[in-house]
Amino acid sequence: MPITPTTERGLATRQRVLEAATEEFAERGIAGARIDRITNAARTNKAQVYGYFGSKDGLFDAVIADSVHRITSAAPFDGGNLWDWAVQLYDANVEHPELVRLSGWFRLERRPVGMLFDNDDHQPKLEAIARAQAAGTVRGGDPFDIIAMVIAAACTWSPISGIYTASPQDPESDHERRREALRDFVRAALTPGPVPGDQAASRKRA
Amino acid sequence: MPITPTTERGLATRQRVLEAATEEFAERGIAGARIDRITNAARTNKAQVYGYFGSKDGLFDAVIADSVHRITSAAPFDGGNLWDWAVQLYDANVEHPELVRLSGWFRLERRPVGMLFDNDDHQPKLEAIARAQAAGTVRGGDPFDIIAMVIAAACTWSPISGIYTASPQDPESDHERRREALRDFVRAALTPGPVPGDQAASRKRA
Repeated sequence: MPITPTTERGLATRQRVLEAATEEFAERGIAGARIDRITNAARTNKAQVYGYFGSKDGLFDAVIADSVHRITSAAPFDGGNLWDWAVQLYDANVEHPELVRLSGWFRLERRPVGMLFDNDDHQPKLEAIARAQAAGTVRGGDPFDIIAMVIAAACTWSPISGIYTASPQDPESDHERRREALRDFVRAALTPGPVPGDQAASRKRA
Repeated sequence: MPITPTTERGLATRQRVLEAATEEFAERGIAGARIDRITNAARTNKAQVYGYFGSKDGLFDAVIADSVHRITSAAPFDGGNLWDWAVQLYDANVEHPELVRLSGWFRLERRPVGMLFDNDDHQPKLEAIARAQAAGTVRGGDPFDIIAMVIAAACTWSPISGIYTASPQDPESDHERRREALRDFVRAALTPGPVPGDQAASRKRA
């Protein structure tokens, strides 16, 4: 049974373990991570790590819980302005590649299908999108599909990109070009109005 | 030095190894894959595997090369109709999750930044997009950014999704709703015309 430290020193150790584990898991995944690299980096020992987190899996769970919070708070969310939010996610991914890498390992090693995370942190976002739809600033459709597609588009150049992963070493002009392309892409995709060439909609209008 | 088999029996063995390795690497990644599981599944031995592929890394390279070809040919590409192509990618990912999973492992374990693959298989796609832009059927912008964003949107529910990974077990109505949402999203994003609310474009028009 994991024990939460009560002393200041214990809390500091637990925090160092979390930080070292975030780095190790982001780099190597769950199977590839080594507890002794984490204890070395955090200047502690295995007994302490297992005391605080129970097991390697328990430590990974704690790292993911901590990171999900950081991922979802990396960019303030406003249902009526999903395009600027997407650009903020782009920047957050360049600055903190470890968050999306952790999600990627979690997906590949633990959750091959279905929801990646069990929390319902999306709920306020879904409600914000529904309000924006009611106000006529975001196109209709299932809010969950919309948020999922916006996140996917924002992650075009993320640390799990199948094409190109952006990095701080890329020229600033590349970052700027991608931000503009992404903003226009999401804005055009979601701004209400008939989809040109949408024959079903044309029939409805006729 | 890997040796290409010359006998029919040798070619069949090599093919069985590739198939078993595709499954093993897609499931567990490079570090997590075990050569003895592959030799058991392919009814051969380690000497044969190392003879044909040189090393575990060489075997992974062969699996990736084989899979990249299958990924890029999973859906026929037409630069003027990127939205239907995106829907075909959605279906291909549901049917063959191993291809995107292999890409995901490759990204996390081998290529943390930059291009995922070195081949220039994208070139014909980029040219098709440039032609569609010249013909006025696809919005302007860097064709590489466009293809990257379309692929990312098509992979919203893919085996590396940060939100929800679709599977053949999902109700058909979910698949159909996602296909329609994706088609509309990409079509609206790319169909030429002013982006509503694009103040830079409004200033240009004024």
